[in-house]
Amino acid sequence: MLSKNQAKKIRALHRKKNRREQGLFLVEGEKMVVELLASSWPIESLYATDEFAQTHAPAIASKGINVFTATTNDLAASGTLVTNNAAIAIARIPAEKPLTPSMDDWVLVLDSINDPGNLGTLLRIADWYGIQQIVCSPNTAELYNPKVINASKGSFLRADVYYAVLADYLQSLPVGTTVLGAYLQGENVHAFTPTSQGGVLVMGSEAHGIHPSLASYITHPITIPAFGEAESLNVAVATAVICDNLRRKKND
Amino acid sequence: MLSKNQAKKIRALHRKKNRREQGLFLVEGEKMVVELLASSWPIESLYATDEFAQTHAPAIASKGINVFTATTNDLAASGTLVTNNAAIAIARIPAEKPLTPSMDDWVLVLDSINDPGNLGTLLRIADWYGIQQIVCSPNTAELYNPKVINASKGSFLRADVYYAVLADYLQSLPVGTTVLGAYLQGENVHAFTPTSQGGVLVMGSEAHGIHPSLASYITHPITIPAFGEAESLNVAVATAVICDNLRRKKND
Repeated sequence: MLSKNQAKKIRALHRKKNRREQGLFLVEGEKMVVELLASSWPIESLYATDEFAQTHAPAIASKGINVFTATTNDLAASGTLVTNNAAIAIARIPAEKPLTPSMDDWVLVLDSINDPGNLGTLLRIADWYGIQQIVCSPNTAELYNPKVINASKGSFLRADVYYAVLADYLQSLPVGTTVLGAYLQGENVHAFTPTSQGGVLVMGSEAHGIHPSLASYITHPITIPAFGEAESLNVAVATAVICDNLRRKKND
Repeated sequence: MLSKNQAKKIRALHRKKNRREQGLFLVEGEKMVVELLASSWPIESLYATDEFAQTHAPAIASKGINVFTATTNDLAASGTLVTNNAAIAIARIPAEKPLTPSMDDWVLVLDSINDPGNLGTLLRIADWYGIQQIVCSPNTAELYNPKVINASKGSFLRADVYYAVLADYLQSLPVGTTVLGAYLQGENVHAFTPTSQGGVLVMGSEAHGIHPSLASYITHPITIPAFGEAESLNVAVATAVICDNLRRKKND
């Protein structure tokens, strides 16, 4: 059983203000907590069922963290998942690494992606396509929002996520950097061949697209060709399709 | 103002049982109702703000339907959207067309996609890639669920959606039909070149994949190559990436 104070401590981290002040966030559910334990990410404490604690005793011991026994009801009542029969970890928010424009791979730049589920799905897509650096506009959803963490399915562990004023970031890129921007009317991405090993891919929100103030930084407006009548694709879906095009060998 | 009975009639259609019995479903929000009015889809009645009714008077008149004035509060309280400042239409569920295996284009086959948001997003993706026929396993989400309709962003208007026992459907295909199945270990979709103009693409759920009983019908197991460490992609994202590969000219 969790004590009232323990449940309160977990519930406090549903709120951004408390995550900021305490430098802590939640990682929930068996698969995600197992991935967290296997990573080098700093963990503050763990609330887990007896079964989870026993099954993963070696991993937990190796991290030297406090484990508190919780029932599945405790976990569902204090966490954000509807059901949770395994564990909730409280993890530490690490210091943000300095954002250095390194252009030997692709960087994903997200403009105003305020839906946390979309951001989490985007982290998973970036992880699938081996894109490590993700630069978000300040009004993009907060990385440590439980909905982002849950939708990322563990991919948050492998992403370097930065928040920056995008005009400043794009301005700071080395001259000659390829900056792709997804538009409804641009060059067909099927025909686009990157001239370098990397660059920047800018994605805007479905509702508003890329902010007009960023247009001057885009060296290549690109478009996913449509073969039917839908007006647009969801931003996560569009990002995956473009990444697939960037990663494919052009002679395939 | 909607009457109590009108609000009750709309609310009844939140439930599958009532949709089935009455052969009616909801289409909500400005963009979707405008698309509905512009289509040939049969409409039973319309609940709209004065502003919407005036702006779209010619389209409404041309359909010869009843319009009832509603406030934005009425629409939000009786519909499924959090906010709705335009309209709710009650549309008729058409008779299901006979499912005839026509193999001169791609058909999307969905196995156990029980999340309605995923099904709606899949309709939108199919619409973008010009895929008209979608064949769903009986346990896939119901097409007329408001969450499916909303997530489809109007693409439900252009899809032919069928529910069928998938083994029976796949069994009925002409000999020699290309049947792709998305697996985590199959042929690299980047290297796959369809030998015909069409065929079938089978997608399973993220949790369970394609049911093992369907494996014998799959002529080409295919895989989206990964370049990072994420374990999987969401089914809608994976479908979009595969469709993009099927539609591209292989000499691009």
